[in-house]
Amino acid sequence: MTHWATLSRDQRHVLASELRASFTRLTSNRLALDLTRGKPGTSQLELSNALDHQMNGDYKSREGVDVRNYGGLRGIVEARELGGEIMDVPAANVLVAGNSSLALMHLVMETALHRGLWPGMAPWQESGKVRVFTPVPGYDRHFALTASLGIEMQNITLGADGPDMDVVREAVRRDASIKAIWCVPKYSNPTGCIYSDEVVLQMAELPKIAAARNFVVLWDNAYAVHDLLFPAPRLASLFAAADLAGTQRHMLQFGSTSKITFAGAGISFVGSDESVLKRIEEQLSLMTVGYDKLNQLRHARFLNGRLTAHMQAHAQILRPKFDLVAKKLHAGLSGLGIATWTNPQGGYFVSLDVMPGLAKRVVSLAKEAGLAMTAAGATFPYGLDPEDRNIRIAPTFAELDALEAAMDVLVICVKLTALESLQTA
Amino acid sequence: MTHWATLSRDQRHVLASELRASFTRLTSNRLALDLTRGKPGTSQLELSNALDHQMNGDYKSREGVDVRNYGGLRGIVEARELGGEIMDVPAANVLVAGNSSLALMHLVMETALHRGLWPGMAPWQESGKVRVFTPVPGYDRHFALTASLGIEMQNITLGADGPDMDVVREAVRRDASIKAIWCVPKYSNPTGCIYSDEVVLQMAELPKIAAARNFVVLWDNAYAVHDLLFPAPRLASLFAAADLAGTQRHMLQFGSTSKITFAGAGISFVGSDESVLKRIEEQLSLMTVGYDKLNQLRHARFLNGRLTAHMQAHAQILRPKFDLVAKKLHAGLSGLGIATWTNPQGGYFVSLDVMPGLAKRVVSLAKEAGLAMTAAGATFPYGLDPEDRNIRIAPTFAELDALEAAMDVLVICVKLTALESLQTA
Repeated sequence: MTHWATLSRDQRHVLASELRASFTRLTSNRLALDLTRGKPGTSQLELSNALDHQMNGDYKSREGVDVRNYGGLRGIVEARELGGEIMDVPAANVLVAGNSSLALMHLVMETALHRGLWPGMAPWQESGKVRVFTPVPGYDRHFALTASLGIEMQNITLGADGPDMDVVREAVRRDASIKAIWCVPKYSNPTGCIYSDEVVLQMAELPKIAAARNFVVLWDNAYAVHDLLFPAPRLASLFAAADLAGTQRHMLQFGSTSKITFAGAGISFVGSDESVLKRIEEQLSLMTVGYDKLNQLRHARFLNGRLTAHMQAHAQILRPKFDLVAKKLHAGLSGLGIATWTNPQGGYFVSLDVMPGLAKRVVSLAKEAGLAMTAAGATFPYGLDPEDRNIRIAPTFAELDALEAAMDVLVICVKLTALESLQTA
Repeated sequence: MTHWATLSRDQRHVLASELRASFTRLTSNRLALDLTRGKPGTSQLELSNALDHQMNGDYKSREGVDVRNYGGLRGIVEARELGGEIMDVPAANVLVAGNSSLALMHLVMETALHRGLWPGMAPWQESGKVRVFTPVPGYDRHFALTASLGIEMQNITLGADGPDMDVVREAVRRDASIKAIWCVPKYSNPTGCIYSDEVVLQMAELPKIAAARNFVVLWDNAYAVHDLLFPAPRLASLFAAADLAGTQRHMLQFGSTSKITFAGAGISFVGSDESVLKRIEEQLSLMTVGYDKLNQLRHARFLNGRLTAHMQAHAQILRPKFDLVAKKLHAGLSGLGIATWTNPQGGYFVSLDVMPGLAKRVVSLAKEAGLAMTAAGATFPYGLDPEDRNIRIAPTFAELDALEAAMDVLVICVKLTALESLQTA
């Protein structure tokens, strides 16, 4: 492939005509394609239908709790074990909640802001301005939640090994208004990177150097076991590192079964120090008598002892989709110097970077052609990608044939947009 | 029975010796009785075990939604119909949530306080001091939730027909800091009263006379269909009254299946004007991708079309318990002038008023005898019963024999305490 920067004006003209013709052919087909949906496909959901046959009239947890009745804010012990296995945290340090880990994150952020997360922790709001580090590109719901609480976000570049920790450490040491950092440490949304052992260690030690004594690490381990290849890469244990560093109460780890069983009907987990879990329970007691323990028991019975086998079955469905995306991007864009992308080994997304200033144009052109992409900018706080170049590809929900058609459209849109840009340059 | 105020000193002495002897006999038995638990008994939970056989591999809602996957903040249509039937509100005005209506109440209160419940509604916090009316005796979790938000509570006496509306209307008309009133309109916790048609109408019209333009009615219809006798008494429709009054967006109605199916694994509902439901969805979208729709579908399939029959089965289990409580109170305390109590036709509680200043003493004496009662004062904001006389009896969880033993202890404690008080008077 010729790098497009080296093309002559005439060559570009010829290429542009060809691409426009292809694009016109595509749009005449009235497509209705969608790569926005970071959710499991139907065949993945089918893998968990046996969830519905776990009770058989036996509603007692291992400790003798009738899961049908009220009570139990911490969650039943077998579900805490499941959460512990998923998050790589001891069951004793896990609280089990309802179907949304995002709701737990919201609760934790609000508690940190207004009340303090452990006895003696000053609420963030007491020290005036509150800021958190947001590695970018990242997860739009983290950003929306943070913004809704009036907390300012400070972007930090996410590399292949995690956030740039030199910048993070320096800023956190200097600036007491920085109270937290958001992390999706394994198969990060959307880049798919895995934080290196070094980054995990440094993350656990951040509270020791932070100017803010109430600094916390928000560790959203949403894709902890969502591997495509086995044996799977291993994320270093934040819990173990924090134990060594003596910073456990500054670590808030989140997980869920959302993309393990039924996306909308799972259970979620938070892991931390006992003092933090107690504070969370205090806050929860104002809002609920307890989460759905029956669904907790259902999940523990279904998954305990067979989690890896279950995730391998997911991988069998997902791997061809991720392979197809990689193949199409490679075949269509490799060597042209107009885009880069990630090749994740797990998770739910592929991150595509086009030439600066072109992401919005690519997404709008795709829309014209009948392909819905996540809005450009969505992977940045306030929807503002400063370079307007990142596009999130969500390949899991589409069937293979639709995914193939969608990737063809996307590749043409990237090429056409790049060529337009080079022609006017 | 002789009214105890008319007893001579000698008669009191004889009686006191007899009662102390009975009390000593009881405490020597090492009892472990409990009347604190306002939750269904095991045989009630058994009534809903068929919930677990509703899916049969069919996960599509009537409108074709795969309930296993993400999405759908409003809830599936058949669950909205169920909520509508329970709350007496059109399905179009219902949002279905997770297993806790308390969580919905918390969300509504927080939204009203900080953001406003509908477009153009000034958040309560903007007008300085915020107060709400709390009919007493009432529900301790309403009080704890309200206090946690820094909102002041103003007690109002709850009569047999509902709160004293003359006082409420006058205060609300005069005082713009009063922003809301908590109501449990049918089988109120703990008195069991049902608001009269007149009170319901006046409630719907309160926003029209309130000095606060952002006044709302918090209508926790927790026992809407929890009747003991059939045909059941009917609560007037707040929705219809508010439609007439043009005050629908000021009405927040709550309900749940918690004491209909599985107490800890049900679904909950909020009913209001469309503008309010939209605002609630906005707030919810910061915390969750959607509630557990699978459990919604399970509930709709199980209950739609047979709700009344199901509640009659509950009543068959509960009626003997409430009858026993009434019988014991009547036999032990009637005509003595030392206590009054309610005889509810539904709900989960009986409210007992002892002589002023004695409730704490009765509860602590009962504890000595091995009977746990809800803390005296719990039915009032901040745990402060100004007359120290109200005691909440929760007869649903105990088995009949334990309930009988517990009521015998309670009756003796009430009598002994009253006699001690009369002797020192």
